[in-house]
Amino acid sequence: MAFKKGYMIVCDGSNGAGKTTIIKAIAAHLLSRGREIVVTREPGGTPVGEKIREVLLSPDTPELCATTELLLFAAARAQHVREKIVPAIEAGKIVISDRFDAATVSFQYYARGLPLALINQLNAIALDGFRPDINIILDLDPAVGIERVNARGEALDRMEKEKLEFLQRARNGYLEQARNDPQHFMIIDASQTLEKVTSSVIEIVDKITDS
Amino acid sequence: MAFKKGYMIVCDGSNGAGKTTIIKAIAAHLLSRGREIVVTREPGGTPVGEKIREVLLSPDTPELCATTELLLFAAARAQHVREKIVPAIEAGKIVISDRFDAATVSFQYYARGLPLALINQLNAIALDGFRPDINIILDLDPAVGIERVNARGEALDRMEKEKLEFLQRARNGYLEQARNDPQHFMIIDASQTLEKVTSSVIEIVDKITDS
Repeated sequence: MAFKKGYMIVCDGSNGAGKTTIIKAIAAHLLSRGREIVVTREPGGTPVGEKIREVLLSPDTPELCATTELLLFAAARAQHVREKIVPAIEAGKIVISDRFDAATVSFQYYARGLPLALINQLNAIALDGFRPDINIILDLDPAVGIERVNARGEALDRMEKEKLEFLQRARNGYLEQARNDPQHFMIIDASQTLEKVTSSVIEIVDKITDS
Repeated sequence: MAFKKGYMIVCDGSNGAGKTTIIKAIAAHLLSRGREIVVTREPGGTPVGEKIREVLLSPDTPELCATTELLLFAAARAQHVREKIVPAIEAGKIVISDRFDAATVSFQYYARGLPLALINQLNAIALDGFRPDINIILDLDPAVGIERVNARGEALDRMEKEKLEFLQRARNGYLEQARNDPQHFMIIDASQTLEKVTSSVIEIVDKITDS
């Protein structure tokens, strides 16, 4: 069997925009094309990263400082890249991640207002030269996203409890990152039907991975 | 009552050198002089920091990458400084910490060989301009320190399981930091009797805090 080139696809965007469902669709599609895949998420994705995720998303630590939060995201990402993502890509697999570095830029810089230079510095340390092939951004009004999450009967984590205005700024952050780097970002209107969203995403995935 | 100036004293050095005992002696001394004190430790010192400490010192995650480790130490330290240390000092208290930023330089740069520029960058982010008044370094041959830890019947954590050569490099790191910055470091020979070590430390503490 010919060696296949590995890729990394990030599925990102507002909470409630359907990332989980779309990731399952991408995974099923790539498996049907005979590709080996790794489905993962941030923060988390490794045993160490999942422990860090618990610290980050725990609703019982409202005192978590913005700088601490940023350093924890970077720590989880550093582990994720080195332990899981790069080895998988080097083995010719396609990695599909629920969120990645663009989420930090959206939530910590655009929404929370931390210095962009600091965020870029920490992302550079965590990524060590690595970058995903594509960020697929499922774009949705956060008010609609939160309604969807509530409708699923899920408890809101610390991030989701942020004010709507905060989530709106994060959404705008994704849109602006996509405008600044159209080669690595694709915006999908997540208010469309699931069928339409899925087919748009699969088209992008096929183009990127030549599957 | 006149407002008293706050200070931060760090007690650091090899494992098994007697940090815990000496910190108790410093605390008792300062309390007897009518000072308000806060005893803390790194990694940890806050609820968030203690959760991060669990991730760092857990013996069941040997795959923890060096960069991840560094980012986790910085995260715990950022929280520690902002939530606990600076507010205490501003309230006129004396903070006594078991380890602080010098430990990261010793263990991650001198012992593990990570880039010093990266460590300085992360310490700068975590400390945000803050620095301790004095680092009291309890200096001891790591082989003797490990023997003492074993004699106490304590289980070794991930750090303590490092090879002796690693611990020796960390020890040299403390000595070199002290040579480079004698104003903020004081080396104490921890192979002396407890009485001698204690009286030397108390002398330094009195000089620093004018107690």
